[in-house]
Amino acid sequence: MADQKVILSESEMPKQWYNIVADMPNPPSPPLHPGTGEPAGPDDLAPLFCMDLILQEVSQDPYIDIPDVVMDLYKMWRPSPLIRAKRFEEALGTPARIYYKYEGVSPAGSHKLNTAVPQAYYNKQAGVKRIATETGAGQWGSAVSMACSFFDLECTVYMVKVSYRQKPYRRVVMETFGATVHPSPTDLTNSGRGILAADPESPGSLGIAISEASEDAATHDDTKYALGSVLNHVLMHQTVIGEESLKQFELIGEYPDVVVGCCGGGSNFGGLAFPFLRENWKKGKDTSLLATEPASCPTLTRGHYAYDFGDTAMTSPLFMMYTLGHSFVPAGIHAGGLRYHGDSPILSQFVAEGYIEAEAYQQLGVFEAAEIFAKAEGIIPAPESAHAVKGVVEEAQKAKDEGKEKTILLGLSGHGLMDLSAYDDYHQGNLTDHELPQAEIERALAELLPVGA
Amino acid sequence: MADQKVILSESEMPKQWYNIVADMPNPPSPPLHPGTGEPAGPDDLAPLFCMDLILQEVSQDPYIDIPDVVMDLYKMWRPSPLIRAKRFEEALGTPARIYYKYEGVSPAGSHKLNTAVPQAYYNKQAGVKRIATETGAGQWGSAVSMACSFFDLECTVYMVKVSYRQKPYRRVVMETFGATVHPSPTDLTNSGRGILAADPESPGSLGIAISEASEDAATHDDTKYALGSVLNHVLMHQTVIGEESLKQFELIGEYPDVVVGCCGGGSNFGGLAFPFLRENWKKGKDTSLLATEPASCPTLTRGHYAYDFGDTAMTSPLFMMYTLGHSFVPAGIHAGGLRYHGDSPILSQFVAEGYIEAEAYQQLGVFEAAEIFAKAEGIIPAPESAHAVKGVVEEAQKAKDEGKEKTILLGLSGHGLMDLSAYDDYHQGNLTDHELPQAEIERALAELLPVGA
Repeated sequence: MADQKVILSESEMPKQWYNIVADMPNPPSPPLHPGTGEPAGPDDLAPLFCMDLILQEVSQDPYIDIPDVVMDLYKMWRPSPLIRAKRFEEALGTPARIYYKYEGVSPAGSHKLNTAVPQAYYNKQAGVKRIATETGAGQWGSAVSMACSFFDLECTVYMVKVSYRQKPYRRVVMETFGATVHPSPTDLTNSGRGILAADPESPGSLGIAISEASEDAATHDDTKYALGSVLNHVLMHQTVIGEESLKQFELIGEYPDVVVGCCGGGSNFGGLAFPFLRENWKKGKDTSLLATEPASCPTLTRGHYAYDFGDTAMTSPLFMMYTLGHSFVPAGIHAGGLRYHGDSPILSQFVAEGYIEAEAYQQLGVFEAAEIFAKAEGIIPAPESAHAVKGVVEEAQKAKDEGKEKTILLGLSGHGLMDLSAYDDYHQGNLTDHELPQAEIERALAELLPVGA
Repeated sequence: MADQKVILSESEMPKQWYNIVADMPNPPSPPLHPGTGEPAGPDDLAPLFCMDLILQEVSQDPYIDIPDVVMDLYKMWRPSPLIRAKRFEEALGTPARIYYKYEGVSPAGSHKLNTAVPQAYYNKQAGVKRIATETGAGQWGSAVSMACSFFDLECTVYMVKVSYRQKPYRRVVMETFGATVHPSPTDLTNSGRGILAADPESPGSLGIAISEASEDAATHDDTKYALGSVLNHVLMHQTVIGEESLKQFELIGEYPDVVVGCCGGGSNFGGLAFPFLRENWKKGKDTSLLATEPASCPTLTRGHYAYDFGDTAMTSPLFMMYTLGHSFVPAGIHAGGLRYHGDSPILSQFVAEGYIEAEAYQQLGVFEAAEIFAKAEGIIPAPESAHAVKGVVEEAQKAKDEGKEKTILLGLSGHGLMDLSAYDDYHQGNLTDHELPQAEIERALAELLPVGA
């Protein structure tokens, strides 16, 4: 009987991260300095990031070696399993063969540790004493807290207030690893105080929390900032997911026709999909890549492709990306990790150029799909990952309608065991679907700067 | 570089459970019928359990085949990894080599699924429609809910009230898999109503919840009862843990000098330790086996070795075991899975005969040890498992004092991601140590029956 799990040995783990910038058909649009409108260089990023990470951010090299210390820590949970979801297939009655790459085996419960560990490592090497960061759902904050603990770095986390209230267990995880956690917006930063002055009841947003954490880092000499998504070096660290998946499919002599992942800032999706995109370009493969997002924060499907700030306080460089406007505050749905107004610039470019497709889903259907998956496979998906599960349900239905035996790869970025209040709300009937009004989309146009495309 | 994780392939999984009853140096003391005082036979158990499980309970065969369907479901998470805890060793500054066998990879987050799945399977085979069970910490209830969902069985869980309040996420997990969860004591059963009449504010106990669940099963034709520990067949299902560990140590050419596991009803400890005990007896090995428990519920270390009821309502057979008395209600500490008044009869016998050692620990030291482990290895242990971590800290210190390079196997039965309120209380200073007064121990003597040893 064939094994259900495709397991690599530690010696088969990829030893390099993949930098898709080197292989892009069209050059990426550069980030712009917010004051001058000129392309931002390494020096502009220096107040926030250590030089090793900045060099990775702007690197043109296709592969970058993973340091030994990072490899050793990766081995705590990597290589992650690729699992045939036979019972899920049966539950869906689909002829499709569904595999899921499961990043919930990380002790932080999600893929985020894949980049938190190298970010902590490079900062430690650079003599940094403290990391300031933001977190939405709490997945990123948990991962950074853990990584800082491994390298004996202090850690301050600005947690989006609505998530701070909904997910007390996430706070406890971060505190267990020694981090200090603030519900954002706070009165500890200028950007936080500004938001609170305008709206004392602000539920917070990733954009606001990013402003707070980056201001904290920029105003303290011993502190750097860590971002959990969007930037090139972050997506690059996550490519271990896709590279392992490629090796695992090779082991079993299969190859996915469709790759589905959820997309907030793009780190999970990029990490999973970019190695497959390279194979499409370089080896003539023809895998469809589907990014899924919530209908309440439909960046890729309804956002504007334009230059915009990465944060709410307009202090970051300008990025060419799909955006709902930097002042956008999404409804307090539970998939906190998907509540970002923008998206990774390179991933946005691939969507604009047609290399990646995107779909947005309402949350009731997302939780329904997640529970079918849970009952079949035992794993309760994180609300973010549940958006990918919903995408797979749709693809499986298509395969059924077409009578096709296609192979689907589901990127299951994390488990939902620390996000169970969302499932409770779903059971209690407290969740509703929410379509973002068109006026909200148009409102964003007014705040986008007349530069770029 | 040697791999940090010792991984077996699915084809190397043990295909049989080990039944230590076949190898016991002295025959086990039989359970007694509560009415007659005569040994209880299969018929006495028939109202509660299906016949396949009863036959396993009384079996004298050393090995019992694991059904294919169960093997297939085991492969969702088994074989579980054996992991070298190098960073934990460094944190402790010990010359000991510490390995942990990690059962938290199960989708239920603990070892409990190892027996929940076969119990659900045999009940389904027997035409049972519904399972009634109890849960303390929620680990067992989560596992049964999941297993029932896999086999399309209804599931009713009586959850100890203090845990129901402390651990809402556990309830959500069970509900996600379709179970109905009641805080126990309830007014749905005679035993629950009796307890509530005497103490409307009763926090509940495992003994009470067992009475309720078994009454529910005994009074409904389509319903059977499932027990998560104590009984022989339950411990036997858990031996996959120890059998895999033996194979994993063989792969790396090592062998443990000490095996440490936490012990409530004994299923985790027995499942881990019994295969090693067999090797001690049959292959001249000399591994020490250490069962750890909370000082607030010190069954093995301070209980009476006598015949007692397994439940509070005095409806179960009488078991020869270490007991604090069937009416014992332990303090509401967080390690809910270790709050049982009794213990597995065969495991109790091995403690009485000197084959297994036991230690009790106060909870502050337990959480301190757990946080050292978490910061080193990334995994936040379940409060129950944390008692084993504390035992390993003590053993590692001994190794340091003696300058010995001994090998320690830690049974890490589950993660604590659904038990974080306990860690929060620990951080907030809300936990205190609690030594059970001697009067409480002596009180139990009065309710023990004058039969047996």
